[in-house]
Amino acid sequence: MKLDAQWITGFVDGEGCFYVGINKHSDMTAGFQVLPEFTVVQHKRDVKLLDALKDFFGCGVVRINHGDRMAYRVRGKTDLLKHIIPFFIKYPLKSKKVFDFEKFQKILFMMKAGDHMKASGIEKIRQIAHQMNRGQSR
Amino acid sequence: MKLDAQWITGFVDGEGCFYVGINKHSDMTAGFQVLPEFTVVQHKRDVKLLDALKDFFGCGVVRINHGDRMAYRVRGKTDLLKHIIPFFIKYPLKSKKVFDFEKFQKILFMMKAGDHMKASGIEKIRQIAHQMNRGQSR
Repeated sequence: MKLDAQWITGFVDGEGCFYVGINKHSDMTAGFQVLPEFTVVQHKRDVKLLDALKDFFGCGVVRINHGDRMAYRVRGKTDLLKHIIPFFIKYPLKSKKVFDFEKFQKILFMMKAGDHMKASGIEKIRQIAHQMNRGQSR
Repeated sequence: MKLDAQWITGFVDGEGCFYVGINKHSDMTAGFQVLPEFTVVQHKRDVKLLDALKDFFGCGVVRINHGDRMAYRVRGKTDLLKHIIPFFIKYPLKSKKVFDFEKFQKILFMMKAGDHMKASGIEKIRQIAHQMNRGQSR
């Protein structure tokens, strides 16, 4: 199935999620691991749409989310910076989710600059991440 | 806000619902009223998207759905046949929701032919409507 860019933006306005997790991790320089992820969840009957998103973006995985729901998920700053961020800059979201995307993008650019390796950077990332996904369930 | 047709299809693949209600109604020739409706529900923070859909289609209403959720709703066979059905024929849904749309369209065409005014037509419409929206919450 071939997807149109505008269709993807519309679908992600409805079903997508931009999220940044921050976990304690003793192996990391700053003591924390920053885990940005872009996710689209669907009932398994529409797993082909998730596969088509994966094909379109050329990265990520399609896995069981929970129960009969599947998720297309892109993690890791390399794929997010290369494939996901540029797409949503070119085809902006129309819902308020765009504000989550902007924070997500900001954190990814900070990670690109290595800010997540410093305690001061982690603190700033935490503040931005805390303002994301408010008023919506994940 | 101006919407792109492909964006709308993607958004409706995620958030739209095609539904046909059948209620007892003593004033109707066949004793039943057939109530087809197309709905898109969003959190009130994105009510502008629903207003933009209303502007795009040139019909329907935006009202409170429940709590902090708003709904764009198109009811009545005239608007559905004139504005909604032709759009989704031209820009087909990509999710399994397309099968609901096909049944919805079939019922609307039956209503156009006046089948909902006859007991035999109502029974057939009821059978088709019964197969819609399975495996998804409204």
